[in-house]
Amino acid sequence: MPGSLIYTGERQVDTLRMEMIRFDAENLEEELLTTQTLETVRKEGMVTWLNVVGLHETDKMRAIGDEFEIHNLALEDILNVNQRPTFDEYDNQFFVATKMFRAVNEVIISEQFSMIVGKGFIVTFQEKEGDIFDGVRSRLRNTKGRIRTRNSDYLAFALLDVIVDHYMAIIEEYGDEINDQEVQLLENTKKEMLKELNLSKKEVNYLRKFARPLRDTIINFNKSDNPLIDKKTRPFLKDLNDHMTHVTETIEVYRETINDNLNTYHTHMTNKLNDVLKLLTIFSVVFIPLTFVAGIYGMNFENMPELHYQYGYYIVWAVMITLALGMIIYFKRKRWL
Amino acid sequence: MPGSLIYTGERQVDTLRMEMIRFDAENLEEELLTTQTLETVRKEGMVTWLNVVGLHETDKMRAIGDEFEIHNLALEDILNVNQRPTFDEYDNQFFVATKMFRAVNEVIISEQFSMIVGKGFIVTFQEKEGDIFDGVRSRLRNTKGRIRTRNSDYLAFALLDVIVDHYMAIIEEYGDEINDQEVQLLENTKKEMLKELNLSKKEVNYLRKFARPLRDTIINFNKSDNPLIDKKTRPFLKDLNDHMTHVTETIEVYRETINDNLNTYHTHMTNKLNDVLKLLTIFSVVFIPLTFVAGIYGMNFENMPELHYQYGYYIVWAVMITLALGMIIYFKRKRWL
Amino acid sequence: MPGSLIYTGERQVDTLRMEMIRFDAENLEEELLTTQTLETVRKEGMVTWLNVVGLHETDKMRAIGDEFEIHNLALEDILNVNQRPTFDEYDNQFFVATKMFRAVNEVIISEQFSMIVGKGFIVTFQEKEGDIFDGVRSRLRNTKGRIRTRNSDYLAFALLDVIVDHYMAIIEEYGDEINDQEVQLLENTKKEMLKELNLSKKEVNYLRKFARPLRDTIINFNKSDNPLIDKKTRPFLKDLNDHMTHVTETIEVYRETINDNLNTYHTHMTNKLNDVLKLLTIFSVVFIPLTFVAGIYGMNFENMPELHYQYGYYIVWAVMITLALGMIIYFKRKRWL
Amino acid sequence: MPGSLIYTGERQVDTLRMEMIRFDAENLEEELLTTQTLETVRKEGMVTWLNVVGLHETDKMRAIGDEFEIHNLALEDILNVNQRPTFDEYDNQFFVATKMFRAVNEVIISEQFSMIVGKGFIVTFQEKEGDIFDGVRSRLRNTKGRIRTRNSDYLAFALLDVIVDHYMAIIEEYGDEINDQEVQLLENTKKEMLKELNLSKKEVNYLRKFARPLRDTIINFNKSDNPLIDKKTRPFLKDLNDHMTHVTETIEVYRETINDNLNTYHTHMTNKLNDVLKLLTIFSVVFIPLTFVAGIYGMNFENMPELHYQYGYYIVWAVMITLALGMIIYFKRKRWL
Amino acid sequence: MPGSLIYTGERQVDTLRMEMIRFDAENLEEELLTTQTLETVRKEGMVTWLNVVGLHETDKMRAIGDEFEIHNLALEDILNVNQRPTFDEYDNQFFVATKMFRAVNEVIISEQFSMIVGKGFIVTFQEKEGDIFDGVRSRLRNTKGRIRTRNSDYLAFALLDVIVDHYMAIIEEYGDEINDQEVQLLENTKKEMLKELNLSKKEVNYLRKFARPLRDTIINFNKSDNPLIDKKTRPFLKDLNDHMTHVTETIEVYRETINDNLNTYHTHMTNKLNDVLKLLTIFSVVFIPLTFVAGIYGMNFENMPELHYQYGYYIVWAVMITLALGMIIYFKRKRWL
Repeated sequence: MPGSLIYTGERQVDTLRMEMIRFDAENLEEELLTTQTLETVRKEGMVTWLNVVGLHETDKMRAIGDEFEIHNLALEDILNVNQRPTFDEYDNQFFVATKMFRAVNEVIISEQFSMIVGKGFIVTFQEKEGDIFDGVRSRLRNTKGRIRTRNSDYLAFALLDVIVDHYMAIIEEYGDEINDQEVQLLENTKKEMLKELNLSKKEVNYLRKFARPLRDTIINFNKSDNPLIDKKTRPFLKDLNDHMTHVTETIEVYRETINDNLNTYHTHMTNKLNDVLKLLTIFSVVFIPLTFVAGIYGMNFENMPELHYQYGYYIVWAVMITLALGMIIYFKRKRWL
Repeated sequence: MPGSLIYTGERQVDTLRMEMIRFDAENLEEELLTTQTLETVRKEGMVTWLNVVGLHETDKMRAIGDEFEIHNLALEDILNVNQRPTFDEYDNQFFVATKMFRAVNEVIISEQFSMIVGKGFIVTFQEKEGDIFDGVRSRLRNTKGRIRTRNSDYLAFALLDVIVDHYMAIIEEYGDEINDQEVQLLENTKKEMLKELNLSKKEVNYLRKFARPLRDTIINFNKSDNPLIDKKTRPFLKDLNDHMTHVTETIEVYRETINDNLNTYHTHMTNKLNDVLKLLTIFSVVFIPLTFVAGIYGMNFENMPELHYQYGYYIVWAVMITLALGMIIYFKRKRWL
Repeated sequence: MPGSLIYTGERQVDTLRMEMIRFDAENLEEELLTTQTLETVRKEGMVTWLNVVGLHETDKMRAIGDEFEIHNLALEDILNVNQRPTFDEYDNQFFVATKMFRAVNEVIISEQFSMIVGKGFIVTFQEKEGDIFDGVRSRLRNTKGRIRTRNSDYLAFALLDVIVDHYMAIIEEYGDEINDQEVQLLENTKKEMLKELNLSKKEVNYLRKFARPLRDTIINFNKSDNPLIDKKTRPFLKDLNDHMTHVTETIEVYRETINDNLNTYHTHMTNKLNDVLKLLTIFSVVFIPLTFVAGIYGMNFENMPELHYQYGYYIVWAVMITLALGMIIYFKRKRWL
Repeated sequence: MPGSLIYTGERQVDTLRMEMIRFDAENLEEELLTTQTLETVRKEGMVTWLNVVGLHETDKMRAIGDEFEIHNLALEDILNVNQRPTFDEYDNQFFVATKMFRAVNEVIISEQFSMIVGKGFIVTFQEKEGDIFDGVRSRLRNTKGRIRTRNSDYLAFALLDVIVDHYMAIIEEYGDEINDQEVQLLENTKKEMLKELNLSKKEVNYLRKFARPLRDTIINFNKSDNPLIDKKTRPFLKDLNDHMTHVTETIEVYRETINDNLNTYHTHMTNKLNDVLKLLTIFSVVFIPLTFVAGIYGMNFENMPELHYQYGYYIVWAVMITLALGMIIYFKRKRWL
Repeated sequence: MPGSLIYTGERQVDTLRMEMIRFDAENLEEELLTTQTLETVRKEGMVTWLNVVGLHETDKMRAIGDEFEIHNLALEDILNVNQRPTFDEYDNQFFVATKMFRAVNEVIISEQFSMIVGKGFIVTFQEKEGDIFDGVRSRLRNTKGRIRTRNSDYLAFALLDVIVDHYMAIIEEYGDEINDQEVQLLENTKKEMLKELNLSKKEVNYLRKFARPLRDTIINFNKSDNPLIDKKTRPFLKDLNDHMTHVTETIEVYRETINDNLNTYHTHMTNKLNDVLKLLTIFSVVFIPLTFVAGIYGMNFENMPELHYQYGYYIVWAVMITLALGMIIYFKRKRWL
């Protein structure tokens, strides 16, 4: 129902935490905010980054929404963990939502990420403890470089850039797997590989499901003429766009490779089966005339002169062996064996 | 024939019913209208929602059309239950038609829904008793929130939002089914599953047939610069558009999954058959040389020394068993068994 | 060669006939024109509809062309029965060509239809006797409704509307056939159905070949800002466009259904064949060890104690029957039977 | 290397020939030019068509280029027989290149065709003797019609129109072939047809390779607002565009038909093979129990009462024949035969 | 991380080398620069081409970046060997990146190529020794033609033109291979060809991966209204665009051919296997009734009159041979053999 704030995910943290970093070119302040201290969050001339971890406490969410004058629809989207990646513009603010991925001990962790960007502040929302932004934080803390002298639009770019980089990292990991599978298939196709191949397909399709709308989101970010976006940030956005295009193209390439692998798998399995069946058929065929010959001399006719030859039995053996060898040679020549 | 009002569906209710809800921020009036009281329907400064249930009484339909100055073409489209989802604009009014779905006791009920939106009023048309708008009605009755303070454009959004939500709910139900099928296929593919898979395909294709034009309809609603649409309603329309995009994307994802499932099914069935055939072929092949040996010693040559050996018969058995075991071991080693 | 008038079809009628209907809101005049009376065809303040049946008399065609100042290129296109559906604009006129279809006694008759629309007149051209416009004619004759008060642009719409309706009618007929086939396939797939399925595919493809350019034609008609097209006709054109979109979408849906049907057919036929082959293979396999046993006791070794047992023969029978039953039970358990 | 003139084709004629036709509404002059007389080629108030046959003499080509002030890039493209169909505009000139086809004695001859169109002149280039423009020439010589009163833009249209007509003629020839193949496939699929089908595919693909960029070329010609193109030529260009669209659509239709034909071929061949295999399998299966029975009574047990029955042998024959007939009837009933 | 310069490739040369060519219409100077002499690189009124070989020395790269005021993002992209082909515009400069290919002794060498183009200078970056620009260099050194009188934009075109030409050369080499494979497949399909076909597919897909974004890059170059691009360079860019379109279209054509080849391969292999299986099946089938007959007369019934006929044995042989010949003739007639 429009207008109601409901968190659609599972509760991932105990209490909602509000981490603030406030900076300008000279100073940097960090603080864990409470609902009480929330109203002190902004300071004239500085840029505030408020990172909210955990989305399940609707009251606090509403308090944050009120403090930053976040549009109700944006608040609802922040709480909806099934929200499609999107870029929306409101008066004096813009909103970005996306799925973000990170690999922890070979396990891919995904969570919903949203951010509200306004003049002089940026509020980010994430579901779980731990994230991929430590690099951005240390650049803020340690350097007095570009990121400290720019406004919230550049920080928004920096965060999205990290997210896109992690998409790239994960798809490249998958890519290594997929290329390994390709090599293995050419060397020795095993029946067990089908599961692996199907798993890779599933994984890549899952990533693609989010990568494609994220790409649209970034394209919209790029095209936006929002006054919040500084002219100096534009080349960075174009660069981000290029990276994301690279991600989606790489995903498509791997999808094709997986399909080729699956085809190779099926072709190999069919060929293997066919080879077995051909071999077995030829084996049967070699015995068929031999058995027939044995049948002939198993007949009980009174007048069968061969039966009385001294060496009849040995001659029959000779005939049979000749027949069998002849057929095998014939099949070899025909390249059926 | 253009210009003639013909209801193309089957009669679903006894009499056409006209349910009116009229509201402003302060007051809310509800009334069942008749043709006589129809002309009192609109009141300056209030928003009127007239919901018409049952479309088969052409006279009453024409009366409604006259009262609200509905364009003849729109009236015809309202009566045409095969009308494609569409968004049309007339002078001072716009028209939306779509199929709407709801699940009642696991059965999906679909019916044609149309609405005419003008300044201060909205007329909706549905074929059957019962609908999915009770949530909207209770928000109107119980709260004095946003929906009561806005005009007909916001109400139109709210109704479409419910319709889109029900598309989502149904496709997600199908999605659960489809994912179940996927799991089942990986565990144990049964012949009977083909029908289920084909049924899911049919269902998803049916939904998709309406979802795609509904998406176009909502895109057109969004793009429209009709003065009836308030600037404050815009973000909600964009949100609605995102939801609908999500619906159509989800449908495409499930279509792909179904096709993958069908492929898995066929692959499994073929593999199963091939395994059976291979096993049976190997079984035959093992017996072929044994039968040949038996045939040899069934021959009636006078001079066959083996036949007179004391243990000839037992030696032959030994040879046969050795042969059979040798072949089985060979096939096992070659991984044909 | 550009500039020469050649009728590219076969002669379908004896003489070219020119049927005129001239009307305004008050009066309606009908007349069969000859080349001599052709110049009286237009009258100030009235709308003239000249319907030309038969295209093979080039002289008369040129006379008509001269009378209505039809551009030479349009005249050539009118005579070309292979002319693709098209919408062209000339000074003060526009030109529409399309294939039109009608069903007579379950046979689909197709013919080329063109029309030249100018201020106050419309000239239509068709190849064969009999058409689908009797509804339009009777609306002209009997009512004094919209069609009598509007200009030639509305009449053009009315004629195209009939043509599009007949596309819809035919595709729906095909649709019934295709759905029947689907049901039949699920119940009992017969070899003979392949021809029917291929025929349906051919028919739908044939219709589609004309429907797609007709859709482009109608889109162009819609987009045209020709002053001949009255603002009041616009909603009708949009409606026509929606219908035609519906036609092409329905065709695509049926194409998919046919392809699914063909797949189902092939799957069923393959399954049937495979079932037969599996059954026959199992049948052979059951006999293989039995025949081997018979072969064993057909050997002529001197020392084969079993041969001398009193009940040896019966024991062998018992062994054989046990073997056969054992195998059948095994196969049943494995669900191979 | 840009800037160098190299003819990339094989030399097709002995000497480059320059055929001039110069005309206005009243006069027509024809002349074979040499490098010396080249500078007299243009005359105020007349339209000059210079047709150059053979492209291998680079010096003469450069002379022509200088005389008509042809841009260097255009000259290079003229000499490049692998030049993609293209429409380029230079100052005061436009350039068209395309592949042109003609059928001579059932053999398709293709060659590169280019033209430079300027105010009052048109220079065409072709590789080989003989072309498809005799119709245009005779219209120039014999009539005083449209083509004589218009400028070079109309002549350019007329030449392209002939080229497009020949595309159409060739694709229709292929179409007849393809439809023949379709009929043949339905009547009696022969193994030898595969080659023919693949050949048709190759031919259609070859034509398509040039038709698609030619279509783009003609679209660009149409869209160009070059002042050289007279308003009166516009409808002819639109018509040309329609023809070319028709060509490309027809090619796509035939491609689909060829693919359908190939599918039909494979289906038929598979069905044929399967029918043979089924028949042979059934044949074997009928003999299996008979051979088993014969094996039974070939056993050498002492106590086998049947062997001593007076009519044992005849009874066994009766049993065998009954068995065989029973199985055949059973298979017939099951529709396996 | 944005802002940091990291070379993502492997070190390909020992030291970074800076080759300068500076020219105007009259003079040409060449020099190997060092970090010290770098600042003398530009001279008023001349065009400087600085070619940088080797990208691993970040300090020198930064020095170059500072000298030419290259945007940091461009510098990062230059160092990123996985950078997608791109065309970016910065203030007073534009940036092009692409993969470039060359064939050395039948081995395809690929490397990252980037260039920064500004007023009066162009800086190119490549990873490895040796390149494909010697033709451009000798045109600069030897002629006083177009390339010497134009600015950096024309030089940029000339370099890209060489790169596109090498794409074309390589795809045509592949094309020859692919066409050879096609011919071979029609003559004699060998099992070993599958690897070759898959390799060709891989190679073409690899090229395509870079060709498609390069095409976008060149399209963007074309569309750019950057003041650096002289009006006289425009036709050359359009020509470049045509070439690149030709490259991508040719790649698509070869992809289709490879797929057709793979299909042909599989069809041939299947046909071959099926022919073998059919032949072997027929062989078995011919022997089945013969073995049955032999079985019949191997039975031990007391009363079997045939056994006592003088010529019984010979008659049976005659019957068997007749049977076998009859079957063979029957199969030949049915065209199964």
